Amino acid sequence: MRTSHLLEQLMEALRCLPGVGPKSAQRMAFSLLQRNRQGGLQLADALSKAMTEIGHCRDCRTFTEEEVCAICSNPRRQESGEICVVETPADIVAVEATGQFSGRYFVLMGHLSPLDGIGPSDIGLDTLEFRLQNEQISELILATNPTVEGEATAHYIAELCSEYSIPASRIAHGVPVGGELELVDGTTLSHSLAGRQKLY
Amino acid sequence: MRTSHLLEQLMEALRCLPGVGPKSAQRMAFSLLQRNRQGGLQLADALSKAMTEIGHCRDCRTFTEEEVCAICSNPRRQESGEICVVETPADIVAVEATGQFSGRYFVLMGHLSPLDGIGPSDIGLDTLEFRLQNEQISELILATNPTVEGEATAHYIAELCSEYSIPASRIAHGVPVGGELELVDGTTLSHSLAGRQKLY
Repeated sequence: MRTSHLLEQLMEALRCLPGVGPKSAQRMAFSLLQRNRQGGLQLADALSKAMTEIGHCRDCRTFTEEEVCAICSNPRRQESGEICVVETPADIVAVEATGQFSGRYFVLMGHLSPLDGIGPSDIGLDTLEFRLQNEQISELILATNPTVEGEATAHYIAELCSEYSIPASRIAHGVPVGGELELVDGTTLSHSLAGRQKLY
Repeated sequence: MRTSHLLEQLMEALRCLPGVGPKSAQRMAFSLLQRNRQGGLQLADALSKAMTEIGHCRDCRTFTEEEVCAICSNPRRQESGEICVVETPADIVAVEATGQFSGRYFVLMGHLSPLDGIGPSDIGLDTLEFRLQNEQISELILATNPTVEGEATAHYIAELCSEYSIPASRIAHGVPVGGELELVDGTTLSHSLAGRQKLY
């Protein structure tokens, strides 16, 4: 027998978070009630604002509450004319963290998956094609995941680029830096050999 | 450079949950935005209701939005006259899960800790003393944690009981069921030996 209906509702609602099961939900609910009600209220406020106000950037389709996101609207990011195509907004965070890319992005919000009924227009390729036609793009860097679907999506987009004579490139697959050769799987090592670069 | 201010606020707010660091917060925020906005809104609603409306039960001090919680107000739970004293509301859930206890509870919301300035009135012992004086209590079962502070708290409450001639008992400490003797620590094994029970 539980002592509070609202507490049960809270525990149930917390389970919509990824990786949170019944035990973690209970721990979270009790922790907020006992030690941090103010933080709980702030979280409620941030959640409802984010869920209702955050939409997608008109140009790159990433999450933003503006019409055009901060990266797309920054004139400095338009100079190089490079566009990096990624699968999710989280991938933008990862690429930004390297500090090596100063162009703009395009977020597919998924990958081509005909078996699941996800076709080109579902991952915004009509929007991308419009940009290919109307923008000065120097290079399209395809940074989709190195999975079967990610590769297929990358090749599909590369063909789209060839129609508009825009250079397309794929990020390198190979042995991770700091990794050990004997621990790397065979497919990665094959990619690593095939993609070898001349030193002199 | 982040693309959304509200998204950053949400990630920051999610970190008030126990065990959620920057990476998990990012994963949770993106997961809700991409796949479950409805769930996110429900969570916001459940959080704000719980944080503002849940208080403490007048009798047992557990979390509830009513004046008296469902367990305390249930006449069947008053029959045995037993009261189980626990440190947190989560301990009630654990004891209820055993299905072995049909009495009522008293939640200390902590334990005696003179070094941290936590005295008897901070853990509601004045309320408990009032109940010892005014209710028909057949036994007080002390189920505080088997820590130094938990033991001290149990002994303090046991002395309080002796003043009102109410029987007090302490839950057994010993080898956990399914555990192996050689893997159990020395203190637990000592308790287990000292608390041995006659078989015939």
